[in-house]
Amino acid sequence: MAADGAPATPSAFYKMLAVPEAQELILSETQELPAVEVRFQDALHHTLAAEVRAVEPVPGFRASIKDGYAVVSSDGTGEYEVAFEAFAGLSPRTLQPGTVAYIGTGGPLPEGSDAVVQIEDTEFLGAAPSGAKRVRIVKAVAPGCDVRQVGSDMAAGEVVLQAGHHIGAAEVGILASVGATRVTVHRKPHVAVLSTGDEVCEPDATDLKLGQIRDANRAMLLAAAAGTGAKVTDVGIARDTAANVEAALDKAISEGADILITTGGVSMGDKDFIKPLLERRGTVFFGKVKMKPGKPLTFAKVPVPQQGRSLLVFGLPGNPVSSLVTFHLAVVPCIRKMEGWQEPRLRRVHVRTAMGIKMDPERPEYHRAVAHWARPAGAEPSACCGELVASSTGGQISSRLLSLRSANVLLEIPQADGVLPAGTVVSALVLGDLGAMPMPETPAVTVLP
Amino acid sequence: MAADGAPATPSAFYKMLAVPEAQELILSETQELPAVEVRFQDALHHTLAAEVRAVEPVPGFRASIKDGYAVVSSDGTGEYEVAFEAFAGLSPRTLQPGTVAYIGTGGPLPEGSDAVVQIEDTEFLGAAPSGAKRVRIVKAVAPGCDVRQVGSDMAAGEVVLQAGHHIGAAEVGILASVGATRVTVHRKPHVAVLSTGDEVCEPDATDLKLGQIRDANRAMLLAAAAGTGAKVTDVGIARDTAANVEAALDKAISEGADILITTGGVSMGDKDFIKPLLERRGTVFFGKVKMKPGKPLTFAKVPVPQQGRSLLVFGLPGNPVSSLVTFHLAVVPCIRKMEGWQEPRLRRVHVRTAMGIKMDPERPEYHRAVAHWARPAGAEPSACCGELVASSTGGQISSRLLSLRSANVLLEIPQADGVLPAGTVVSALVLGDLGAMPMPETPAVTVLP
Ligand SMILES: [Mg+2]
Ligand SMILES: [Mg+2]
Repeated sequence: MAADGAPATPSAFYKMLAVPEAQELILSETQELPAVEVRFQDALHHTLAAEVRAVEPVPGFRASIKDGYAVVSSDGTGEYEVAFEAFAGLSPRTLQPGTVAYIGTGGPLPEGSDAVVQIEDTEFLGAAPSGAKRVRIVKAVAPGCDVRQVGSDMAAGEVVLQAGHHIGAAEVGILASVGATRVTVHRKPHVAVLSTGDEVCEPDATDLKLGQIRDANRAMLLAAAAGTGAKVTDVGIARDTAANVEAALDKAISEGADILITTGGVSMGDKDFIKPLLERRGTVFFGKVKMKPGKPLTFAKVPVPQQGRSLLVFGLPGNPVSSLVTFHLAVVPCIRKMEGWQEPRLRRVHVRTAMGIKMDPERPEYHRAVAHWARPAGAEPSACCGELVASSTGGQISSRLLSLRSANVLLEIPQADGVLPAGTVVSALVLGDLGAMPMPETPAVTVLP
Repeated sequence: MAADGAPATPSAFYKMLAVPEAQELILSETQELPAVEVRFQDALHHTLAAEVRAVEPVPGFRASIKDGYAVVSSDGTGEYEVAFEAFAGLSPRTLQPGTVAYIGTGGPLPEGSDAVVQIEDTEFLGAAPSGAKRVRIVKAVAPGCDVRQVGSDMAAGEVVLQAGHHIGAAEVGILASVGATRVTVHRKPHVAVLSTGDEVCEPDATDLKLGQIRDANRAMLLAAAAGTGAKVTDVGIARDTAANVEAALDKAISEGADILITTGGVSMGDKDFIKPLLERRGTVFFGKVKMKPGKPLTFAKVPVPQQGRSLLVFGLPGNPVSSLVTFHLAVVPCIRKMEGWQEPRLRRVHVRTAMGIKMDPERPEYHRAVAHWARPAGAEPSACCGELVASSTGGQISSRLLSLRSANVLLEIPQADGVLPAGTVVSALVLGDLGAMPMPETPAVTVLP
């Protein structure tokens, strides 16, 4: 029955894997990408491939914590001459007992001084006609007062960032502060995205014919992949012929992709060319997963002998919800492992359901929901951290992309008959950034009794 | 005493604001940036300035949910001729009762048919010598079975995304699926970052002199601002002269910045030129905030009459921890409001402390910590969502940037004497993406009894 005589896909004969099995198989076939050296600013959002040590102590000199006067602490209170001002970069001078030196926050303690008296504990007495300034030290201080000792923030030789550490803004600052201006990070993967299907049109197409649809998947998955920091390449829409789909695979290879994501063409219909192609060109590890949505999810490795490497291929289902859900469950951990994450799996939390959730008797379901923080009714603020309460995004049919609108978690709904009652605690995978979650109530600031 | 005769800063005389007062003042002085029209793909991570409606229904035709046969449901079980194949883009044909049409997932139901029988409930009987194919329908179906009706995913005219909605990957897909390929979003702010200080050197400087330090703040804050999606401009390091600092302000204005972030120069020392400059050129709303770290935090607005607009200036303290903490508390909500967030404030959650936390008797402290999910000892998985447990990052002196290493929350530690015991529930502000938080234990998947 196949339209152009290609063999029917054998996908009906794939063993159905459980989601954790499929995920572990993906991770076991995924390799960290090679390390590259980059400018420290360009390391932002990358993972370190090698530890970074402080080659010098921070601070590199005894530094004042306050604006005030560097003193010989044993001199104590009284009136003193301001012998000089201790600023960075000036030729170092030595402080004689019985005198003080003006010093700003972060300034270098002069030789001979051993403490700082903050300006609030002094009284400026004006300048003598000779120009000499005098100050009254109102409060005696102990040796070391308001002084950061050499290496007290970072010791010379200390590992300031371990291999495997993610570089955020603070880490960029840490690298700058120890002069580590070149660092070694894992390369990020290059992800190619392909849509397949005779019915699929560009999003801005005019005059759709009966049965034609706009391509939501490609732009959506390019955005999702770009959102992980991956480099992305759009390999377009392949029509439903074996030759067209193979040409797209070869394009992804020639563009240097590490990962190819396809959507559509993995069901058991006559026009589904993805699995047969991947079987011919490489190894298909699985072609069916026990999950809703996403059952036809396919994972394969295609050798690229001329480049001495392999391309990982994720054949995602064509329904847009299925494609984005399987992107999170299957592709995101793979991308994270490639870019060096020590723990590439999605983060799992436990949430309380805000409404009843219908279960599926045949497959565990990844129910899209919006989680927000809330305090259980009647709970004392000081006794309890509050919890994540998850509201369903509504109808969960896999074509209904609105079920992913604002979704920041996937509820892991067990396979069963019936309805999971509102108020049930279920596990959930974190999709979005909970630092931007909806705020139906603002939790109170802690106040001590 | 000022080195070059400039007037001493009056910062000692600023009224000390509480953090919430300062934050509300910032938000009240911050305006949403104008709307711009962009390609839908470029709307990723932006906030919609206008709602988006579906101009057409999704699906736009009756679509099959399965691979199988389009049927006249009242025909029931039995053997039927496969009259044709119903694919997208072909000239529409009408199905006669007593025949069926092959249809793939997503295919258009032919006129005359009213349901789909999935391929698993059929038996292919082969082709007659004439070429006509025959199939046995094993299971009768109700009208509408496995059919997505027109507009069932999105109705024509439905608001699919509200103004104020953040565009993530799913939203890019939603826009594509309704052909909304141009959308109106708020422009993102342009943030300029300046370091100040005679002691401040480039991070790759060699041969630091006594008292000189590498500039951690500028690269760190550029990274932090870029991480919010803002456009960033590096305005370099200004030396401690009034003229130098003013030239940097003018550079930020001429580059078109919406926000200027400065670090250093806001204490009560002689070389602190930021507050006097801002007083002269604009309005200083506050110059002192009751917080640790970050007390000298300064916020001002400088009119730019030649461009009919204003520049917001945040004078952050020079210690690197103070600068990044105040960036989160003061600048991030401002950036979020400019780019159209309906709720620009940092997200507050409640966390349990993993260790004792020393309190400060004079100011509330923003204690840097790493939060992870954990189940309270002895709690039943099904009874409780677990909670965020926060571990201190160690010494909290404001020069110690390692206190921000991996930090994903700021604990809001009340102003008080003594030590807050381990196990206390405190409020905390979310800094990082909790979807990437550390995983000391992996919470279990829900399994029904
Ligand atoms: Mg297809
Ligand atoms: Mg300074």
